[in-house]
Amino acid sequence: MRTFDEAVATAALARQNNLTKPPGSLGRLEELAVFMAGWQGRERPRIDRAQAIVFAGNHGIVAQGVNPFPAEVTALMVQNFRAGGAAINQLCRVAGAELVVLPLELERPTRDFTQGPAMDLSEVEEAMAAGAGAVDPDADVLLLGEMGIGNSTVAAALAAWIFGGGAEDWVGPGTGAGGEVLARKQQAVEAGLALHRPATAREALSAFGGREQAAICGAVLRAHELGLPVLLDGFICTAAASVLTRDDPDALRHCLIGHESAEPGHHRLIEALGMKPVLSLDMRLGEGSGAAVALMLLRAAIECHNGMATFAEAGIG
Amino acid sequence: MRTFDEAVATAALARQNNLTKPPGSLGRLEELAVFMAGWQGRERPRIDRAQAIVFAGNHGIVAQGVNPFPAEVTALMVQNFRAGGAAINQLCRVAGAELVVLPLELERPTRDFTQGPAMDLSEVEEAMAAGAGAVDPDADVLLLGEMGIGNSTVAAALAAWIFGGGAEDWVGPGTGAGGEVLARKQQAVEAGLALHRPATAREALSAFGGREQAAICGAVLRAHELGLPVLLDGFICTAAASVLTRDDPDALRHCLIGHESAEPGHHRLIEALGMKPVLSLDMRLGEGSGAAVALMLLRAAIECHNGMATFAEAGIG
Repeated sequence: MRTFDEAVATAALARQNNLTKPPGSLGRLEELAVFMAGWQGRERPRIDRAQAIVFAGNHGIVAQGVNPFPAEVTALMVQNFRAGGAAINQLCRVAGAELVVLPLELERPTRDFTQGPAMDLSEVEEAMAAGAGAVDPDADVLLLGEMGIGNSTVAAALAAWIFGGGAEDWVGPGTGAGGEVLARKQQAVEAGLALHRPATAREALSAFGGREQAAICGAVLRAHELGLPVLLDGFICTAAASVLTRDDPDALRHCLIGHESAEPGHHRLIEALGMKPVLSLDMRLGEGSGAAVALMLLRAAIECHNGMATFAEAGIG
Repeated sequence: MRTFDEAVATAALARQNNLTKPPGSLGRLEELAVFMAGWQGRERPRIDRAQAIVFAGNHGIVAQGVNPFPAEVTALMVQNFRAGGAAINQLCRVAGAELVVLPLELERPTRDFTQGPAMDLSEVEEAMAAGAGAVDPDADVLLLGEMGIGNSTVAAALAAWIFGGGAEDWVGPGTGAGGEVLARKQQAVEAGLALHRPATAREALSAFGGREQAAICGAVLRAHELGLPVLLDGFICTAAASVLTRDDPDALRHCLIGHESAEPGHHRLIEALGMKPVLSLDMRLGEGSGAAVALMLLRAAIECHNGMATFAEAGIG
């Protein structure tokens, strides 16, 4: 397990304070550069290789009518990712990330969590291993995203489990649920929370699903082992990763939240984690799209950190 | 004068609503793409050529002890821009903008506005013409920034003039004023507001200065003539451009505010303009740095807009 290198971070911060600008005046960009330095163990961090992984899964909970789109859309969107037609393809190109798309047994949805556990523990382990295995150990930063019709319902259940509160606190429109669909979504989460009493992260993933959530957890754990900084995406991605904090309160120390989603539960989730998103652009797409936009900011932060002259070099002061 | 093409913007919005994502789910990125389409008069906008101009000037008001740095730093920072060592150099490189640095008679500071007008009207015209002349008519987007020791004091005076309120509403730390320096800054703005009663944008620039502020106004007007969208930077840049709204309430319709600065007056200024910043990253450097970071978001918006498949193309729905 690589840990944050405080000495390197201190040196990186000292460098920031000597660059040709009032100390602190690059705001969040300075914090991002120091974060990257500490995790990479390099006073001048780099992003030569950024990997984005989008995990896709299908969910039995769609039987409860929680989503305006049919489950088939998950596979169609995976095709769209592969054909280069989705938002994440454009954003990875412009932000300079290599995109890996990993569908997880789309033809075998998890089970409806209002009727019983969504997955066996062995299925959880399998999906976590798939997530861990997809991580490029040579990457300098890892972006995580997801796609799966019904998965904002799963996310709401996981968020309520890890941070408490009722279904109404965590259920939002997702891909566009309103009226009766939204009411059914809330009822489904309530039913799931009443049925299951998981004690660990793995039990929660077993109870509520889904495969892409488990894969995200596996990738987050693997990245932590590697000391690889992670950009999480929005509500679903953050909710998935959050369950790891039940087993280890420091499980997300190497993670940044790429953006604050317009999905209302995300703000609550970020507050509960005590984290600060990089961006807030009213996005609510998933796919890793917010993480990819945030990668551009990381690059800007690192370019300033590495490329700027110090006051001494510029002959000032 | 090129105006915003409503028909093209409507077509661009219709395209957004057919792309493979829930309508609206790219949030601010969708708005940015439609804004660019309307101003460029192209359903698929482009940024082949982004120009960033940093105007630099010196200010007689520094005689009042309003800044912890000496006026010589303006010229040293211009050298730093030219040598490639400043934040704006790194940010223009990573965001893909061509940087033009235009010092405006640094050896001839404007006059102390607590003692009389900072500039003659002819000097205002000259600086405005320099700003207009620097704009590349072939650019697809224009970024504006500034550098000038003392110019956040000038900005506070201009902001108070255009939007009312007292010096205490608009004066902030700038490059790092605190304690007595901050108090002197506030007194200087109060004295300036008591002394001058300008009626037009040009008279306000004559009263308070400075050359870089006038140049920003000239560039904003020229860009409007060209129908060229503009990314304004932070407090000083926005305050300068704001004075144009006295002569024409629509003077900034072609402008975006790149970011909300940590300088407290900027939030107030953005509210008064009824605008919405692209980013909010606690930056407070000037130089066009926030505009350059925002350019990355514009590129992301346009890549998604132009490159994504429609639902029909992806065979969904």
